[in-house]
Amino acid sequence: MLKPLADRVVVRPLEREEKTASGIFLPDTAKEKPQEGEVIAVGPGRYEDGKRIEMEVKVGDRVIFSKYAGTEVKVDNQELLILRESDILAIVQK
Amino acid sequence: MLKPLADRVVVRPLEREEKTASGIFLPDTAKEKPQEGEVIAVGPGRYEDGKRIEMEVKVGDRVIFSKYAGTEVKVDNQELLILRESDILAIVQK
Amino acid sequence: MLKPLADRVVVRPLEREEKTASGIFLPDTAKEKPQEGEVIAVGPGRYEDGKRIEMEVKVGDRVIFSKYAGTEVKVDNQELLILRESDILAIVQK
Amino acid sequence: MLKPLADRVVVRPLEREEKTASGIFLPDTAKEKPQEGEVIAVGPGRYEDGKRIEMEVKVGDRVIFSKYAGTEVKVDNQELLILRESDILAIVQK
Amino acid sequence: MLKPLADRVVVRPLEREEKTASGIFLPDTAKEKPQEGEVIAVGPGRYEDGKRIEMEVKVGDRVIFSKYAGTEVKVDNQELLILRESDILAIVQK
Amino acid sequence: MLKPLADRVVVRPLEREEKTASGIFLPDTAKEKPQEGEVIAVGPGRYEDGKRIEMEVKVGDRVIFSKYAGTEVKVDNQELLILRESDILAIVQK
Amino acid sequence: MLKPLADRVVVRPLEREEKTASGIFLPDTAKEKPQEGEVIAVGPGRYEDGKRIEMEVKVGDRVIFSKYAGTEVKVDNQELLILRESDILAIVQK
Repeated sequence: MLKPLADRVVVRPLEREEKTASGIFLPDTAKEKPQEGEVIAVGPGRYEDGKRIEMEVKVGDRVIFSKYAGTEVKVDNQELLILRESDILAIVQK
Repeated sequence: MLKPLADRVVVRPLEREEKTASGIFLPDTAKEKPQEGEVIAVGPGRYEDGKRIEMEVKVGDRVIFSKYAGTEVKVDNQELLILRESDILAIVQK
Repeated sequence: MLKPLADRVVVRPLEREEKTASGIFLPDTAKEKPQEGEVIAVGPGRYEDGKRIEMEVKVGDRVIFSKYAGTEVKVDNQELLILRESDILAIVQK
Repeated sequence: MLKPLADRVVVRPLEREEKTASGIFLPDTAKEKPQEGEVIAVGPGRYEDGKRIEMEVKVGDRVIFSKYAGTEVKVDNQELLILRESDILAIVQK
Repeated sequence: MLKPLADRVVVRPLEREEKTASGIFLPDTAKEKPQEGEVIAVGPGRYEDGKRIEMEVKVGDRVIFSKYAGTEVKVDNQELLILRESDILAIVQK
Repeated sequence: MLKPLADRVVVRPLEREEKTASGIFLPDTAKEKPQEGEVIAVGPGRYEDGKRIEMEVKVGDRVIFSKYAGTEVKVDNQELLILRESDILAIVQK
Repeated sequence: MLKPLADRVVVRPLEREEKTASGIFLPDTAKEKPQEGEVIAVGPGRYEDGKRIEMEVKVGDRVIFSKYAGTEVKVDNQELLILRESDILAIVQK
């Protein structure tokens, strides 16, 4: 597994059928293309002014993030993304 | 529902008939196109110097924001915007 | 009415006849075009290093600001501008 | 009169005859064109890290500043400049 | 040996056969090309706000970093990279 | 005389014969053209985080600085430069 | 001799025969051309948040730095470079 550094988060982008179930529609024509995913791993948080800033997302959260953010990685045939928490816009609540 | 991260805010842009009722007119020809909306969800605030900064807007507020700010999201057929609080210019008071 | 956020200020730009009375002349040929206005509403101030910075202008002040700053808004047929306090150069004293 | 905000200063640029008397010659061919002036009004200082920084110049000081800095204003037929203190390079001492 | 300064890290990029064993696949077609490596030496950490920030990686860690980060150095016929810790995205855990 | 503000320094660039005596040769073909000079006046230091930072150079120091830094001023027929201390690279010690 | 200011360091670039002896090879074809040198003089350190940051390198250290960093100076026919410590990547240990 991957253990992200600082304020990074590992996210599994949702498949089309999973997205439809969530009731959220992220238009392809949007200015800043948003995408939905599930949080797989969370870093310890970045430092600000010598203090660690607690992360807001946790493993299992459904999140919306910008489509163009992060780095693609494939682990055990699963496509994942490593993002900074600041690239995550919102948590989708059930 | 969406739970925005940090200093982000979820806003529902106002329809034309709602805008007319508010008595505020936001010209299309303005340099920085402003738009009116209603606050639907508010993040916990961003960190500055290791301290969380309290948000100034709250759910239900009518706000003016820049037309080109934020990310469009469609939840349950409702078009919403995820903005940073710094993209909101003013609260419209009744 | 508008309640500006952070260090924003709502200003009503002065009409030509009001300007002449003030004895201040702001040349159209200046490099950074200055403009005169009256402060209509004042935000609570921005945060710096976790502390709120007190605003220097107050409602009723006559101020000089850069012509190209801010966002135009029309409220009850009155043209207003939403500026940041840092776009205001000086207060005109009587 | 003008009361400058933050770390701004109102300066009256010196006339040619006044400049000659000061013994300072500011070449027109210099890379960063310097200019000489008299301080007319001084702001309360800017905030840094939540504390106000005291101004170094005072009313009556003869100063050297960059020719391309600031905003031109005409008050009672007198041409003035509103500058930031950081645009002032040095005080001319008698 | 090399002793990196501040928040720098010396990394040995993995050979093709080593990568296959780790089960992680880093696509060449990715937007930000990621690469896998082993940490060989770790700096003492950078200063922030007058305090040293502890490093998150240690010697022996398998890490993922951006292909275009850092400076190539050849020591005793071994190709190494000197990176900043912020160029490392995640630690690969066994 | 000139009293520089903040972290500014007034420097008298050395003449060719003075330079030769110092044993330092600053090549015209260098990437960042360095120049030698004598410190004539020193500002009180800039503020950082609300505290004044003590100046490292003092009147009489021989210094090396970037040729393209600063503003040229002519006082009593003497060509001087107003620089920031950060434009000074090193003090030449006897 | 030169006494560097703030976080600057005076470095003597190594000759070809000295480099071969160190066992480190810095390829000319590298993206960010690295170079090897010996530290000749060290500044007192820069200020951060009002506190001086201790230097990590000391006189006599063998260091690797970016070829395009710093300012060339010739003292007593010896070619030297004035760099910032942040341009030094690593210390070469014996």
